[in-house]
This record gives sequence, C-alpha cells and structure tokens, in this order.
Amino acid sequence: MTRRIAICAPSTPFTREDAARVMALAHAEFPGLDLVFHDQCFASEGHFAGPDEVRLEAFVACANDPAFDAVWFVRGGYGANRIAMDALPLLEAPAYDKQYLGYSDGGTLLASLFRAGIGQSVHAPMPVDLRREGGEVAVRRTLSWLQGDPAGLEPSLADGQPAVAFNLMTLAMLCGTPLLPDLRNHVVMVEEVAEYHYAVDRLLFHVTNCLALAGIAGLRLGRVSQVPENDRPFGWAVEEMVHHWCAKTGIAYLGAADIGHDVDNKIVPFGLA
Amino acid sequence: MTRRIAICAPSTPFTREDAARVMALAHAEFPGLDLVFHDQCFASEGHFAGPDEVRLEAFVACANDPAFDAVWFVRGGYGANRIAMDALPLLEAPAYDKQYLGYSDGGTLLASLFRAGIGQSVHAPMPVDLRREGGEVAVRRTLSWLQGDPAGLEPSLADGQPAVAFNLMTLAMLCGTPLLPDLRNHVVMVEEVAEYHYAVDRLLFHVTNCLALAGIAGLRLGRVSQVPENDRPFGWAVEEMVHHWCAKTGIAYLGAADIGHDVDNKIVPFGLA
Repeated sequence: MTRRIAICAPSTPFTREDAARVMALAHAEFPGLDLVFHDQCFASEGHFAGPDEVRLEAFVACANDPAFDAVWFVRGGYGANRIAMDALPLLEAPAYDKQYLGYSDGGTLLASLFRAGIGQSVHAPMPVDLRREGGEVAVRRTLSWLQGDPAGLEPSLADGQPAVAFNLMTLAMLCGTPLLPDLRNHVVMVEEVAEYHYAVDRLLFHVTNCLALAGIAGLRLGRVSQVPENDRPFGWAVEEMVHHWCAKTGIAYLGAADIGHDVDNKIVPFGLA
Repeated sequence: MTRRIAICAPSTPFTREDAARVMALAHAEFPGLDLVFHDQCFASEGHFAGPDEVRLEAFVACANDPAFDAVWFVRGGYGANRIAMDALPLLEAPAYDKQYLGYSDGGTLLASLFRAGIGQSVHAPMPVDLRREGGEVAVRRTLSWLQGDPAGLEPSLADGQPAVAFNLMTLAMLCGTPLLPDLRNHVVMVEEVAEYHYAVDRLLFHVTNCLALAGIAGLRLGRVSQVPENDRPFGWAVEEMVHHWCAKTGIAYLGAADIGHDVDNKIVPFGLA
C-alpha cells in the first residue's frame, strides 16, 4: 500500500529545483511512498514561506487531509512558532492519525502537537537536508522510516525510555510558554548549530533552570556544530557546560545523542519510539 | 558626605586604562563620589572576568561591605547568570542597604536581587559605556544619579508605575527560571543589540508568551540597534513585531522606552522610581 506524504513549509521557503531532486530520489528508491509538495513550500514573503495565514492554512490543510499518512516539514529557519498556537484548534480527526516530521525550528510545531496529543511528532531529517554534502543519506533515513524501517532511530532510544529531541534554541524559546509539553520522565535530547559558545552556555542555563522541576529523565547532548569564532575563546567545551548546568539544577546528564544539523542526524519519535 | 561606589565585574573583564579614565572623569566632576574598582574587574579566564568563584567572591565582598553605598557592574558581556543564584544566600545585612547598577547581561543579577528584595536594583549606564563615542554623557548620567540627581530617569517613569528594564535576550533567558521576579503591575521595558530581526521576533514570542499570565502593566520598547544584515530582509519592523506579539498574548503595548545599548540609555530603578 502506498503511503502518501504531504510536504509543507511552516517556517521558510524551499525551491522547486530542490523539490524535484527530492521527488526524484523518492521515486527512484522508495516506490511505496508518494510525496506531495504543497505549493506553499515555494511561497515567499520577507523571511517566511508566505505570510502567517498562508503557512497556517497549508499546514492545516495537509494535516486535515485524510489522504495523507504524514506531514513532513520541508525545512526550518524560523517561523513555525507564529502559527503553532493558531493551528491546534483547527485540526480535525484526520490530523490525529498522522506522523509529523521535521526538526530545528519545526520543533515548535512538533512540541505543540505532542503537547496536544495530536498524531505522532518525529524529530527527523527534512527535504532541505538534500542540500548538504552527502545529504541523500539523511533524506533516505526519513523516507526509510516512513516506509516502516526503524534502522534510522537514534541508538540510545534502545533504553526504552520516552524521549524528545530539540534544537537547543528552539526548546529554550518554548520553555516557560504554553507550547511546552509535559516532559516528565522523558529523555530530552538537544543539539545546536551556528551559535557562539557563550550563547550555548546561556541557553543551557535557561533550559536546565526551566526544566529543573519538570521531572525529566535526563538530558542528552547532540552535536553542537558550526560554532562561530568569538573575539576570545570561551574556555569550556560544550560537554563541560552541560555537566555544569545539569549538576547545578539536579538534572541527570545521560551522555551523547546522535542528532545534529548534519547528515548523521537520527530519528527520534516523541514519546515512546 | 562622600558616597562610596564599589565596582566589580560579574560578567566580562575591563582594562586598567579604561578604569583610569572613568576614575579621572569622576574625580574631576563628581567630588562627592569615591569610586573603587575591585581588582577582579581586570581578572580574565576564558570568556569571563575570572572563574565563577572569583566573580562571585568579588561581588559578594562588595555587596557585604558596609563602607559602600552602591555596587556598580563594570560591564556586561555574559556571565552574571553563573553567579546570581549562588550569591543570594551569601548576602548579609549591609547588602540590603545598597543600590546595584548596570544593564545588559548584568540584568540577571539585578533581577535576582530584585526578586529577593535585596537593595535597590537600577538599570543604568556602566563604566564600559565610556568606550562609546560620546560615552562620557552616559557615564555622567549614572554618576549624577548616584549623587542624587534624578535628571537621568527614563521619562515614562513619570507615570508613577513600577517598572523594570532589561536587555531582551537577558530577560528571555530568565523567563521560566527561578530567577525571574514577580512582575505583576510592572511596566517591562526591553532593548536589544546585535541580534538578527528574526531572532528579535523569536525573543518577543518567548517573552510575551512567558509573561502573558504574569499580570504585567505592559511592555515598552527601547532601541534595537546594530541589527546584523541577514541573507534576506525580515519584512517586519521591530515595532510591528511587538504589536503582533502583544496582541497575540493580551499584553498592553505602552510605546517607546528611552533605553538601549547607546549613550542615551536612561536610568530605570526597578520597582517604584
């Protein structure tokens, strides 16, 4: 049975050329999948893939369409937070029986849906990852997962604990807001890209202090990549920062997570895998 | 009667040359003030003005010394959050009868002290502002305030409402943590520097959603300066962003605040001026 995947852009726009490349890869290697790029993926207004209303309407249309088995976010960037709260009350029965896949800024929508108990949120590579060198392997990982192959799952999920995975900045911006899910007993995995070391330390301060009383099972550190060079070295490695803030806030540090803004980024279904 | 002002560095280091210039200005124009730079202002380890323990010890020593009337943070940068929670239980009676002055990253300590009801927190220009072109006017503003002159107060404080003033990123990192004061009925002024427009929008999303139920009197927007150019224009002016998020979260937008990372940055005593 063919599985139909709707692709939309809650944050920033994609190009038709790159969409064609993703379609070609899926067509050649995943005959059991039918990818449908919503035209809104190619809309553009200022920073965003179209105005808030357009992005909201496209996401809701994909989610509410019973013909689709999953909604895949084409890329991150910034902007999902501007439609997440408005989307929830518009979602109907078909939206509850779907997977939602993406990461980075898309984590805002994954979190909101997870909090509301709507469908299955999944941290997973996105179509935009095809732009990375060797990016086919990342895109294939999500497509294989959508065909039912669990090989791309983040390895520590084998411990059987419920988990979530977030870009650190995205999670930080959710902490303290009504969009943050109840993370009690969950392993929280974080990764970051293109932030100064001092900013990573600041985000870890924020997130660990916000989650100190949330009863999480612990924190896992994904990759922190493309750190810009500051006017002087920070003096601490990222893992030392995590140790520091976990110790300060009484959160268990559980070790590494195999996630990041790169082609090795693994799959983390929110909740129980 | 001479007022004695202790200067320390909870975040990043200063230089002896610039300290000498601040001393010279104070000596020439403010004979009623006696500024004392703690040696820790010139300590350096990685990003910080010395390790956490050294910055903590210097701040606590200044705060607990009955010979001082005020503690002035030499500059921001990043790091006050690493000592704020540890400092509070170490503060003794003399610390309760003091002003604490600074802004930017120093807002973390101002918030923590304000929350704990220790002394008087004051958003005010710092010694480092002397490095700006025409920076003497900013440094003089704080020195005049310390001599009892209210001329440098942020003008909207004339409305008689309690207020606080924060760097937007600094406030965002406090929201949802145990360091955030009760801001019920307070006007919250925010300013930002050197953040992309999309990041400012994201911070406003976070702060307004976090404060939506905090019962604040409203938000005032200070200057958002040195915005880096992104690969594409954001499409919204900062004031439009504030309007948007205030409307979404039911927070009153009260207009402009005369604060920012610049020489015109005015004085905002936390609570009632």
